[in-house]
Amino acid sequence: MKPLPVSPLAPTHTQALPPVPGCRMAAREAGVRYKGRRDVLLMEFAAGTTVAGVLTRNQMPGAPVDWCRARLPSGTARGLVVNAGNANVFTGAHGTKACAETAKAAAAALGCAPEEIMLASTGVIGEPMRYERIVDCLPAAKADLRGDGWRDAAATIMTTDTFAKSATRMANIRGVPVTINGIAKGSGMIAPDMATMLSFVVTDAALPAPILQTLLSRGVNRSFNAVTVDSDQSTSDTVLLFATGQGRAHVTLDGPGDPALRDFRTKLEDLLHDLAMQVVRDGEGATKLIRIAVNGAASERAAKRIAMTIADSPLVKTAIAGEDANWGRIVMAVGKSGQKADRDKLAISIGGVAVARDGMRVEGYDEAPVTAHMKGREIDIEVDVGVGRGRATVWTCDLTHGYIDINADYRS
Amino acid sequence: MKPLPVSPLAPTHTQALPPVPGCRMAAREAGVRYKGRRDVLLMEFAAGTTVAGVLTRNQMPGAPVDWCRARLPSGTARGLVVNAGNANVFTGAHGTKACAETAKAAAAALGCAPEEIMLASTGVIGEPMRYERIVDCLPAAKADLRGDGWRDAAATIMTTDTFAKSATRMANIRGVPVTINGIAKGSGMIAPDMATMLSFVVTDAALPAPILQTLLSRGVNRSFNAVTVDSDQSTSDTVLLFATGQGRAHVTLDGPGDPALRDFRTKLEDLLHDLAMQVVRDGEGATKLIRIAVNGAASERAAKRIAMTIADSPLVKTAIAGEDANWGRIVMAVGKSGQKADRDKLAISIGGVAVARDGMRVEGYDEAPVTAHMKGREIDIEVDVGVGRGRATVWTCDLTHGYIDINADYRS
Repeated sequence: MKPLPVSPLAPTHTQALPPVPGCRMAAREAGVRYKGRRDVLLMEFAAGTTVAGVLTRNQMPGAPVDWCRARLPSGTARGLVVNAGNANVFTGAHGTKACAETAKAAAAALGCAPEEIMLASTGVIGEPMRYERIVDCLPAAKADLRGDGWRDAAATIMTTDTFAKSATRMANIRGVPVTINGIAKGSGMIAPDMATMLSFVVTDAALPAPILQTLLSRGVNRSFNAVTVDSDQSTSDTVLLFATGQGRAHVTLDGPGDPALRDFRTKLEDLLHDLAMQVVRDGEGATKLIRIAVNGAASERAAKRIAMTIADSPLVKTAIAGEDANWGRIVMAVGKSGQKADRDKLAISIGGVAVARDGMRVEGYDEAPVTAHMKGREIDIEVDVGVGRGRATVWTCDLTHGYIDINADYRS
Repeated sequence: MKPLPVSPLAPTHTQALPPVPGCRMAAREAGVRYKGRRDVLLMEFAAGTTVAGVLTRNQMPGAPVDWCRARLPSGTARGLVVNAGNANVFTGAHGTKACAETAKAAAAALGCAPEEIMLASTGVIGEPMRYERIVDCLPAAKADLRGDGWRDAAATIMTTDTFAKSATRMANIRGVPVTINGIAKGSGMIAPDMATMLSFVVTDAALPAPILQTLLSRGVNRSFNAVTVDSDQSTSDTVLLFATGQGRAHVTLDGPGDPALRDFRTKLEDLLHDLAMQVVRDGEGATKLIRIAVNGAASERAAKRIAMTIADSPLVKTAIAGEDANWGRIVMAVGKSGQKADRDKLAISIGGVAVARDGMRVEGYDEAPVTAHMKGREIDIEVDVGVGRGRATVWTCDLTHGYIDINADYRS
């Protein structure tokens, strides 16, 4: 497959990620599937590191997802191995063995137990993975470990991604500054529950695993779980949050709602949102970033379902690709969502201009600003369904010839 | 918009439709939206005609759908007006008035009550309809009524369709031969509940409306409600079945299950299936007709949901467009369906060749026949999810550049 051009929606500026105390990493070329590029990432975490995770709800999860699901309840981790090119999904007993052997080799390299290693894989489904190649490169990876390898780490986990995704934030917990770094990959097979991607976030804050889990789950709900590229839900979705506890001071916390965590929570959510937006901006074939805000639904859950139905509608997405403010297709999508909506109160705005209200088009609205808005890179749609106070916002991208190009030819 | 090339999946042979006693029709050029083609169909039914219908479950139904829903309980009809180009959806009070005025004019022409007129519209959503143009042409249409206008009728209701859709069957009710004719339109915005399209079926059998309704609902479930082009659910879906009762003899029936109706039921279902297949074969941009059979599900309903999730997956559809037997994406789609499935028992066959079994690929299966099958026009996928005895079959088409071409540019 020839290299894809970088998404026109790629961020123009990428912030450099500072080291996070207690975390080192290395990227190696194992040749699991790709040639001439690094495809295995090893991360090492200091003793005492806590971990939380959110995993795909797809019922055909990959072996690494099974592995993480079994290990997460311990709440601790010392290492992470990620490989790109083969997802190790639908690979039966061989896939389970691939996980066990990889974890064993990583544990030997890092001097910990295999159960303290987290795993993630991304790439083709159903091909037995040549895990020996990963196992073989881990000793050399161990020798390469360093704290400033974030840029390489983000590039190593890419598959059809056209740019590496990373973000960093500083937060403050009772006067102690901590760093939060994150990387992500994802471009196709992106849908909620969870958004189809991998993301690894590391902070040097000292936080117990249960608190970490609550903060992560909340943050994911409004970031990775609020984006969709193509409605397809990956078998490998994995978001892991590691806290090395190497920040300058520990604090006693009264649960995830402790006011001392307010800044950390805000910054973490902001970082997760940033990464999720980067994933949508790299949606396969995307030329427009689309924000869909639904108000007036029966509940927040209903609002999200309606917003996702609009976001996943091929007819809505192709209309936007064609720069056509075809809001009739938005009406159709609201109606197919299965959620309560009042046709005769439905209102739609595009780019801030009301185009439909009270169940029909706004007579004589100014089409010029709407047309201009549709030609831009970022499309803004607001829908009020007129039945309650539930609201939700989701993000997606348009459906273009580029998506067909990429996906009619991925495995070949 | 330039005319689209005829679908490569179009049937090579079209059967001529014989007249149905008690039914006459006329097609006129009203210029509601299209220029230089007929866009309004008027059908007249003999006194005593019964009617049944299945309407969209989309919660933003068009005004004609509201109209039919209110009229169907009477079980009788004397006329039908269909127009193409404007769907009269999301048009508020104006849309309601358009229906009332159209029915009034048709009733005046046919000499019946407005409540005896059924209505259907297809085309753009959200534009107030110039119903005066329809009203104005109805007297001339009345003068044109004839029994052999089926070919024109099928062509008149087309929008993005690339070929006219019709089918006919002969059935036998206790020795009395009856005719069943049907026409349909639909190409995009095709999804279940119900498949996004219009279809009108007429028989000269004499059947009470409740029996007609049961037969139609059953038939639609395995035909129009078992096909999907793009997962988008129309606001205008309408299937109407008229029985003029002009067949040579009436019979007393013991409900829809009466053995005397066995042949009629079979032929009706066969005709509905034929029409539904024609709709999928004309799916926007379609180059492959895809049959997806799911076995081993927890229930028939679960099987259908799984089959539809596979059929609606953009990744599955683009892989097939690329003639790639990427069954990993089928695994993904099964997993995202939300229905019970056993990963470690999952089996997939493509073109009759088992490619995956017991939760992993079949080692060393012969790829040659699978590759050859993928290059054909008709793709056959069978999935066993290993948990029960529920089964269902659905049909869809691939997702191609043609779909993007058509839908990024429809309204312009």
